[in-house]
Amino acid sequence: MVENLERNAEEQAKDMKEISPAEFFEKNRHFLGYENPVKSLLTVVKEAIDNSLEFTCDAGILPEIFISLKQIGEDRFKISVKDNGPGVVEEQVPRAFGKVLYGSRFHKLKQSRSLFGIGIKGVCLYSQLTTGKPFKVTTGIGKGPIHEFEMMIDVSKNEPHIISHKTLKNPEKWHGTMLEFEVEGKYIEKGKSIPEFLKQTAIANPYAHIIYDGPNGKIDFPAASKELPKSPKEIKPHPYGVEIGVLRRMIRSTKAKNVFGFLKNDFSRVGSTSAEEILKIARVEKNEKPLEVNHEELERLHKAMQVVKLIAPPTDCLSPLGEELIVKGLKKEIEAEYFASISRSPAVYRGIPFQVEVGLAYGGKLDPSGEAELLRFANKVPLTYHQGDCAITQAVEEVDWRRYGLQQSNGSLPNGPLVIFVHFISVWVPFTTEGKQAIAAYPDIIKEIKLALQDAGRKIKIFISKRRKSHEIQMRQNLFEKYIPEVAIALSKLSEVPHEKIKNNLEKLLKKGVKEGTEETLEENEKSEENGGEETSE
Amino acid sequence: MVENLERNAEEQAKDMKEISPAEFFEKNRHFLGYENPVKSLLTVVKEAIDNSLEFTCDAGILPEIFISLKQIGEDRFKISVKDNGPGVVEEQVPRAFGKVLYGSRFHKLKQSRSLFGIGIKGVCLYSQLTTGKPFKVTTGIGKGPIHEFEMMIDVSKNEPHIISHKTLKNPEKWHGTMLEFEVEGKYIEKGKSIPEFLKQTAIANPYAHIIYDGPNGKIDFPAASKELPKSPKEIKPHPYGVEIGVLRRMIRSTKAKNVFGFLKNDFSRVGSTSAEEILKIARVEKNEKPLEVNHEELERLHKAMQVVKLIAPPTDCLSPLGEELIVKGLKKEIEAEYFASISRSPAVYRGIPFQVEVGLAYGGKLDPSGEAELLRFANKVPLTYHQGDCAITQAVEEVDWRRYGLQQSNGSLPNGPLVIFVHFISVWVPFTTEGKQAIAAYPDIIKEIKLALQDAGRKIKIFISKRRKSHEIQMRQNLFEKYIPEVAIALSKLSEVPHEKIKNNLEKLLKKGVKEGTEETLEENEKSEENGGEETSE
Repeated sequence: MVENLERNAEEQAKDMKEISPAEFFEKNRHFLGYENPVKSLLTVVKEAIDNSLEFTCDAGILPEIFISLKQIGEDRFKISVKDNGPGVVEEQVPRAFGKVLYGSRFHKLKQSRSLFGIGIKGVCLYSQLTTGKPFKVTTGIGKGPIHEFEMMIDVSKNEPHIISHKTLKNPEKWHGTMLEFEVEGKYIEKGKSIPEFLKQTAIANPYAHIIYDGPNGKIDFPAASKELPKSPKEIKPHPYGVEIGVLRRMIRSTKAKNVFGFLKNDFSRVGSTSAEEILKIARVEKNEKPLEVNHEELERLHKAMQVVKLIAPPTDCLSPLGEELIVKGLKKEIEAEYFASISRSPAVYRGIPFQVEVGLAYGGKLDPSGEAELLRFANKVPLTYHQGDCAITQAVEEVDWRRYGLQQSNGSLPNGPLVIFVHFISVWVPFTTEGKQAIAAYPDIIKEIKLALQDAGRKIKIFISKRRKSHEIQMRQNLFEKYIPEVAIALSKLSEVPHEKIKNNLEKLLKKGVKEGTEETLEENEKSEENGGEETSE
Repeated sequence: MVENLERNAEEQAKDMKEISPAEFFEKNRHFLGYENPVKSLLTVVKEAIDNSLEFTCDAGILPEIFISLKQIGEDRFKISVKDNGPGVVEEQVPRAFGKVLYGSRFHKLKQSRSLFGIGIKGVCLYSQLTTGKPFKVTTGIGKGPIHEFEMMIDVSKNEPHIISHKTLKNPEKWHGTMLEFEVEGKYIEKGKSIPEFLKQTAIANPYAHIIYDGPNGKIDFPAASKELPKSPKEIKPHPYGVEIGVLRRMIRSTKAKNVFGFLKNDFSRVGSTSAEEILKIARVEKNEKPLEVNHEELERLHKAMQVVKLIAPPTDCLSPLGEELIVKGLKKEIEAEYFASISRSPAVYRGIPFQVEVGLAYGGKLDPSGEAELLRFANKVPLTYHQGDCAITQAVEEVDWRRYGLQQSNGSLPNGPLVIFVHFISVWVPFTTEGKQAIAAYPDIIKEIKLALQDAGRKIKIFISKRRKSHEIQMRQNLFEKYIPEVAIALSKLSEVPHEKIKNNLEKLLKKGVKEGTEETLEENEKSEENGGEETSE
């Protein structure tokens, strides 16, 4: 038995080896959104557009994106995505597209679409996995030549493998990036489809101009605004959200000369007074060198950082759409009768600032039967899959929509001709998977989304009950109007006044009455609205 | 504008850097199951036990696992998990526990619990993140000394950092591993709790002896069997499931001298005849060197591999529990009246063999009101979270349980005193996240689970309708029995036979009739069962 075991522990040892992140995600490609041909085709387009929008907006350029998707075989597509972004410098091209877990966003606390350093590399991985062919990147940075790379990923090593590299003249000082690749997939036009994804992208990015040339012709999504929202800023971590393990790493690698400087320089919202207060509570010397802080002192520092009173983190790091742009975006793509929007003030979870925006579109050409349509977004990216597993869905289902004049089965989406737009913005979005399709159900996040939905719900309540009242008044008017001729004749016989005159007077009376009635109704609504507001603040 | 852009592309470039897998998973720890204190505490225990069971069974040892969990602060726990496994050789200890994406299972096609090379490292990551303290590993391999390591993970580098390393004498030639660590968490006893997880682990691993020493005392889960199921075997990939990108990598790194040898040696179920057939269809020379195969030839080879007729992959690579052990496991932990189990034959998706087992426990002390309880397992590991997002749940909800005598709302779990056990076994489980809590909804997998559930459903149908019939007969008997005295008196008056005698005779008659009735009912049931079988084969 013992002999057998020895062999076993030693045999196990022989098999142990490093796993390349590229190979890990190739094998588990469903983590990235590549579990079936329909979803995979959507995922490659989504990742390419995310990448283009991210870097174009970050450079202060109004995005112009051209997507071409052509079917070239039963389950084979040729895709190109071209943007007018800043481009990528020559040395960075191979790794920016060909090395998994490599990027500029992961280490920053900054609102961005691409957090993981995986997305666009996943496209390259999936393309070569299903077609065996290289991925082509053409890019210019507004000076110097245009670079054209054909490349693949060496999956076992997680390193880019350059197949060819050409330089082309750039007399027009073009800047931008074009990706060209082939993938296996399956194309659909309705539901969780590329056109629907692009429509939602256009709603949440109304300053972007997107042209889509698909298998069934061109669709143009023009920009509804010529102004980019203000650029999000990078922030430092706030003491309330820092775990002791991260604090340990920060103190080991800080450039500050002493603990006081470390607290003041490396955190957001810690000034001299707060830093001194933290050190006093933690019983740590101001001038102690960061590398000399031992485990007990670190634990005390960590605890003190949680109890000291600090201002919430700055929120100019967030770039919301704003109420006006939300309505503009919705109006552009949805034919409804009434639009409302709410952009809440920023809130904080685990020291990380976040913000929720809600838009509602009601009536008009929207389908009055069945459930409302829910559009989910995180940092302006539409979330298409895993609706059932998302904090946004949970929040929508937990709101009592009957309070706002809508029908709803318990714990479901409300019913009626309604589109619900929810936008979650943060420097760190807790996605449930690398595929970025749903937000993890943190209680603080759900609470804030519910408050935003309730704010918007109160707006729509006024509209819905106004519409219902005026509908009722109209019905009454119609009924009375029907009997006016008969009443006029009867009165004419009694009074000997010509019945035409009586009829005209009665009609005038009716119109005036209806007008007054409507005004009264409106006032009543506004009053009940105020009460409604108190009711729902939980 | 151009100046600005140049700066931007170059600025972007400065920020680009590699992301350490350890840092990636520390920041996205909810991918690994660490999104809240309750779930995190369960996850550390789950990962430690998985690790112990995996290596102990693999070495052919009946597992004895001792878990101690002590609350040492408001939200702080000290945990130790000790097993009698083969141990870990000295050189491998640091990386086996301290390097993310490192392991012996990922590169193999073999049924195992730990596929990713992440799980136990996640425990170390989470422990140091929330407590700032090292993780302790004590291990012996049955010869040489016992090694005791205190270590942490250098998160930025994804490398183990050894704090201390002691060697202790091992006169008893101990083999096994003990992990000791502290974590933040929150302890619960009911629902998605550690005791419930251990109960389910005991059901699916009835040959394991698990002792749990928790905050509320000891719980012993004794083994119900002294025999380990046969060990799963490693297999080679089957041509039907290989993507062109993987084929390309395989042909570049094969040890075979020519394409013929490559096909024959590196794949499962490819013999000389099939290899020749593939080469003929692909128009590739038998003696061509693997490295000389160009892209067009590779594409043709890949296509030919999909069209040539091949036997399905071998299935001795799977180690099911078997119908007997499923019932033993269920009986051990669940007080029900009736147990049924089904172990289906292996099936194949994307060239990967898999197998489904189902167990049902009905009646007895199970709660007759409300929904059935669903226990999900993958390669013998209980799946606790994300039930709504799992292929197993979808399959259970899609089965029409009313056919089998149970109540069910449309698209829900059935109602009644029922526990449904579903076990998915495969050399590659498509988990939806790294936290291994749900199986991705591949249609082939859902179909096979439904067939297994229907097989088990037919078994339970017999029991349920037998019970219902005998219940009805009992009711009739009771009713008749009530009137026997009166009938006896009336008959006695007419016949002048003593009414006591008539009463006795009537009672005998009643008992006999009931017995015969029951037998008839049984026969009827068996007949209707056979018809039922035909009905449900979809």
